[in-house]
Amino acid sequence: MTYWTMTATGREHLKLAHGDVPVPGPREVLVKVGAAALNFRDRLAIDDGLTMVFPETGPFVPGSDMAGTVVAVGAAVERWQPGDRVISVSLPGWIDGSGPGDALLGGPEALGSGYFPGVFSEYVVLDQEWVVSAPANLTDAEASALPMAGLTAWTALVERGRLRAGQTVLVQGTGGVSLFGLQIAAAHGAKVIVTSGDDAKLARAAALGADHGINRNSRDWVQAVHELTAGHGADHILEIVGGAHLARSLEAAAVGGHVSLIGVLGGFEFAGKISDLARKKLTLHGIQVGHRRSLEELVRAVDQAGISPVIDTAYPHTELPEALDHMTRGPFGKVVLTFP
Amino acid sequence: MTYWTMTATGREHLKLAHGDVPVPGPREVLVKVGAAALNFRDRLAIDDGLTMVFPETGPFVPGSDMAGTVVAVGAAVERWQPGDRVISVSLPGWIDGSGPGDALLGGPEALGSGYFPGVFSEYVVLDQEWVVSAPANLTDAEASALPMAGLTAWTALVERGRLRAGQTVLVQGTGGVSLFGLQIAAAHGAKVIVTSGDDAKLARAAALGADHGINRNSRDWVQAVHELTAGHGADHILEIVGGAHLARSLEAAAVGGHVSLIGVLGGFEFAGKISDLARKKLTLHGIQVGHRRSLEELVRAVDQAGISPVIDTAYPHTELPEALDHMTRGPFGKVVLTFP
Amino acid sequence: MTYWTMTATGREHLKLAHGDVPVPGPREVLVKVGAAALNFRDRLAIDDGLTMVFPETGPFVPGSDMAGTVVAVGAAVERWQPGDRVISVSLPGWIDGSGPGDALLGGPEALGSGYFPGVFSEYVVLDQEWVVSAPANLTDAEASALPMAGLTAWTALVERGRLRAGQTVLVQGTGGVSLFGLQIAAAHGAKVIVTSGDDAKLARAAALGADHGINRNSRDWVQAVHELTAGHGADHILEIVGGAHLARSLEAAAVGGHVSLIGVLGGFEFAGKISDLARKKLTLHGIQVGHRRSLEELVRAVDQAGISPVIDTAYPHTELPEALDHMTRGPFGKVVLTFP
Amino acid sequence: MTYWTMTATGREHLKLAHGDVPVPGPREVLVKVGAAALNFRDRLAIDDGLTMVFPETGPFVPGSDMAGTVVAVGAAVERWQPGDRVISVSLPGWIDGSGPGDALLGGPEALGSGYFPGVFSEYVVLDQEWVVSAPANLTDAEASALPMAGLTAWTALVERGRLRAGQTVLVQGTGGVSLFGLQIAAAHGAKVIVTSGDDAKLARAAALGADHGINRNSRDWVQAVHELTAGHGADHILEIVGGAHLARSLEAAAVGGHVSLIGVLGGFEFAGKISDLARKKLTLHGIQVGHRRSLEELVRAVDQAGISPVIDTAYPHTELPEALDHMTRGPFGKVVLTFP
Repeated sequence: MTYWTMTATGREHLKLAHGDVPVPGPREVLVKVGAAALNFRDRLAIDDGLTMVFPETGPFVPGSDMAGTVVAVGAAVERWQPGDRVISVSLPGWIDGSGPGDALLGGPEALGSGYFPGVFSEYVVLDQEWVVSAPANLTDAEASALPMAGLTAWTALVERGRLRAGQTVLVQGTGGVSLFGLQIAAAHGAKVIVTSGDDAKLARAAALGADHGINRNSRDWVQAVHELTAGHGADHILEIVGGAHLARSLEAAAVGGHVSLIGVLGGFEFAGKISDLARKKLTLHGIQVGHRRSLEELVRAVDQAGISPVIDTAYPHTELPEALDHMTRGPFGKVVLTFP
Repeated sequence: MTYWTMTATGREHLKLAHGDVPVPGPREVLVKVGAAALNFRDRLAIDDGLTMVFPETGPFVPGSDMAGTVVAVGAAVERWQPGDRVISVSLPGWIDGSGPGDALLGGPEALGSGYFPGVFSEYVVLDQEWVVSAPANLTDAEASALPMAGLTAWTALVERGRLRAGQTVLVQGTGGVSLFGLQIAAAHGAKVIVTSGDDAKLARAAALGADHGINRNSRDWVQAVHELTAGHGADHILEIVGGAHLARSLEAAAVGGHVSLIGVLGGFEFAGKISDLARKKLTLHGIQVGHRRSLEELVRAVDQAGISPVIDTAYPHTELPEALDHMTRGPFGKVVLTFP
Repeated sequence: MTYWTMTATGREHLKLAHGDVPVPGPREVLVKVGAAALNFRDRLAIDDGLTMVFPETGPFVPGSDMAGTVVAVGAAVERWQPGDRVISVSLPGWIDGSGPGDALLGGPEALGSGYFPGVFSEYVVLDQEWVVSAPANLTDAEASALPMAGLTAWTALVERGRLRAGQTVLVQGTGGVSLFGLQIAAAHGAKVIVTSGDDAKLARAAALGADHGINRNSRDWVQAVHELTAGHGADHILEIVGGAHLARSLEAAAVGGHVSLIGVLGGFEFAGKISDLARKKLTLHGIQVGHRRSLEELVRAVDQAGISPVIDTAYPHTELPEALDHMTRGPFGKVVLTFP
Repeated sequence: MTYWTMTATGREHLKLAHGDVPVPGPREVLVKVGAAALNFRDRLAIDDGLTMVFPETGPFVPGSDMAGTVVAVGAAVERWQPGDRVISVSLPGWIDGSGPGDALLGGPEALGSGYFPGVFSEYVVLDQEWVVSAPANLTDAEASALPMAGLTAWTALVERGRLRAGQTVLVQGTGGVSLFGLQIAAAHGAKVIVTSGDDAKLARAAALGADHGINRNSRDWVQAVHELTAGHGADHILEIVGGAHLARSLEAAAVGGHVSLIGVLGGFEFAGKISDLARKKLTLHGIQVGHRRSLEELVRAVDQAGISPVIDTAYPHTELPEALDHMTRGPFGKVVLTFP
């Protein structure tokens, strides 16, 4: 089988290697990967070495999000049998609640970080607790988008924000998390506002169910949010840009609103005015993807509400570098790899 | 009767005036004020005109927090009768939930802001909905500390943070909100850590029930929090300094922790690292005092748990300027005015 | 103007009377009623005198739920102006949270109970706090169904149950509350199962968005729920029958499920097995309609999600007795009165 | 080593057997048991065979709650090392949230049920995930009371009820769960009312921190609760009797109150009036002990708040039959076995 690996930080060290199909241990499953989705954090790990380590035993394999089929199970495995379609739990060991970790480092680590195996590989062995059932109605390419992008939006809006019908949800841009936010919000009967610098993308977002699109290059988007909500503001905001951009999201938020900090495009620090935060009793949520119970809920919601994750482009798994470049250029939805 | 008033912004315009005792309307009560507590926001209003207006009819009277006795009631008043001891609801009209307001201004406004009457006055007329029963076991001076300082700590720890026994609460400094935070946390069976630059104040905090004191001038207080909690961190933090100081509080917080932004001593902007926020799934709460239902709960808690608010100094009501100066110097607990 | 009234308990005392259009007090509004919805509790009050009193001043007027237009406002009214379309808050004084009341009687009382004015009248004077904006997209007949039937379903599923997409909601029968439950659940992306003894009604429910219908006369409905959910059970159940029927709902519920006790057709006592309750960690909710904040949320949800309340039959307001009889026969949705 | 076992249902088959000390598997720990607490469910299993099975391999060993010391660990164990003091997680596999199980059977099963090993044994082998750290300040006898009795009270009051200072908690009787409820409530600054038929027990409860005792044989205890709370009622009730007794608890509850159904002394069915449930918007909680995350929180709370579990009598582990008889007679707190 083939798998992606690297022995030093930097894109130039990324190589497609050949190896034996691994054998699952007593409580493990062997999954034949059908598709794997790329996340911004994969690029940070591969190019800059962020939040990754080179494992002491075995190769480093990147990638955390995949959909595939169980092809073999260990002797003590009770949850799965060969033929089951599954998706990965990208943060192994986080079942529910706040999860493991300490004040210094937080946690947990992700698949494909070197702490745990990666999924940019034709086959992967995972603990039986690190996969959940795939949605019945999605292709592997679509299902592979759920473990991080879909779950991040679900955690922000549903698990932390307790979204309900009739509320207003603002998503920034049209990347993978934002489009999942749009679709999850629409499935809950919420009003969805999307901001973008590209009218064509706004039109595509409207086709997916967005109620309003704001071209942030044409006008002050915060003022537009106030107008579109008759002064009420947005009850939920997915802050994708991050950094000082947060300050504007706080202005756009409704009294009692929820703002989830997700993106780091605007920098690794965030800033805002205390007066907005206090006078509107806002809640800011730090989001690290989400736990397994939420992922199981998301799978049920995707099936019931008929959500089809938006895949910008599916590359053959041998074209990971091209796929990484594409992701950096700002796709509409997700960029994924498909495996033979 | 006498009352404090001003016709232009700035301490030099603050004057003690004489007038008639007002008469309550059909749904109003007349309260003889026993004591009134000072808040930092009073100083910002008086000295700098912050979040205040000069009312079109009648004089501007500062002050939002008082305890006193109902001495007359309007014809349609059902909630109160003469002789009832009450404290003020400092943010009138906010009964429960997120309360009134819009995305532009938030809300609501406070007593003593010019939008509503102020309580630095021997008598005050208030809507019957704008007062709640005073705790049975406190003096007026003590009870006057509840409407803003006590309620702010309660909102942060209990209403928003859902504090439970065994958790760790960190309070910064020994001002009014922080000491209420200490006492409320201790009453809930929490571990309390106090930071201060003054060993004498830490000793007094320990006498009030703090489990640990950290002199922030002697050592790195964040590291100390990690050590005192065996790496777990603080589950709840009252961020009193604000501004960039927030970044350090995020480092001190536990996985799943709650950080309430309260103070503005460090500036009106806040900043921190997204990595701390995300990897520890923190929740940041913007706190604007609290609603009436929480104030009623706080009153019951104070009585049941035997909490005695800490009054640094009680000044005769004629010495408001001296009291404001004292508050600026960093008292241990609250500075209040007492009325004859 | 005409209004319905009675001077003694019992249907035979119900009379359409004539009187002057009332004049609003300083904080009141005069509403020209467009439509009023009937609730089971109206029948209990009119026929059996349940939870009603004859007011000491003025006539008893039944009816709590109406939609209409503000035609005059008192001098101190700030929330409304003539021309505003409004619906009634059926439990006056309950703004948010748990609301008023004590351990002996609970509370609050409803409009049309004698404690408060009733709305089966061409015009009604209400406190400005006792109405909220009507949905923009509904007729008065449709909007009049929200204050009790719609709000009861919203409170059970959303406010208490915290419904999310992908969960399974079971509603019993096809009365007003159940059909609102169906529509609210579908608007949140939930799977909806309806039980009924009538296949024609199940077909109509499917057309409204129900995923599955179970004819309870054809088969064991609890077993059917287990099968339709692959053993998972229902996450939310609106228990409309009540009494001992609750025991079966507990069997149908999922682990961690929510069961809302709403109906009293099966008797005023409820019963069930502790083992179901405990081993599935169920939560049983006692539901008394809901508070004003929830009603405002429901109005926004209805407009955003395009929910059209189901009106079985609209009677001219002069035919209240016929309408009451119709309601007793088990309508599909609501029975309402329309006013000229 | 010795351990208790039986090959057929019924007390007469209960025997103390001898066997080899077991050896832990790769992810298991061997614990030398210091003390084990008895629960009512142990008697139901031993005497009546309730919710138990005879395992296909190995002997049936009763008992779910123990405190002891890790003496050996498997090769893959990371959480523990020899010398660690631990207590058992009585419902293995329930980490957080609603946990595993389906609509038919609920779940999970307990230690000592035959589905999982039992702890009435000098040594027991358990999965490393099935124990948590013991409180630092308790003896083994005291600590053994936490896994079921302590956790049940914590789940009801804190995890489900979200208890806060100043609220009123009613506990019925002075058994193990009730006394934990008393102590947990007092540690959170709540007002505690205890009912009992025995004045001596009420006096002992007062010494433990109860604010009020009501002798249910001397007067109507519901009326007494109303009086002691000035008509407010109890915000939280631990319903220990169950059956039709629940109806009285509903009468005693406050508006918005929480009633947790725990006991089955009054029968395996419960009953009450819908009017109490609805008009007071009560929440009834089905409680099955609790999850591991709550148990970890309880351990921290016990250490921080200085809670000492009440042990009525500690029997040598060879006297299990005598201990079971004692438990049936209504002890004050817990009956435990101590091991050499």
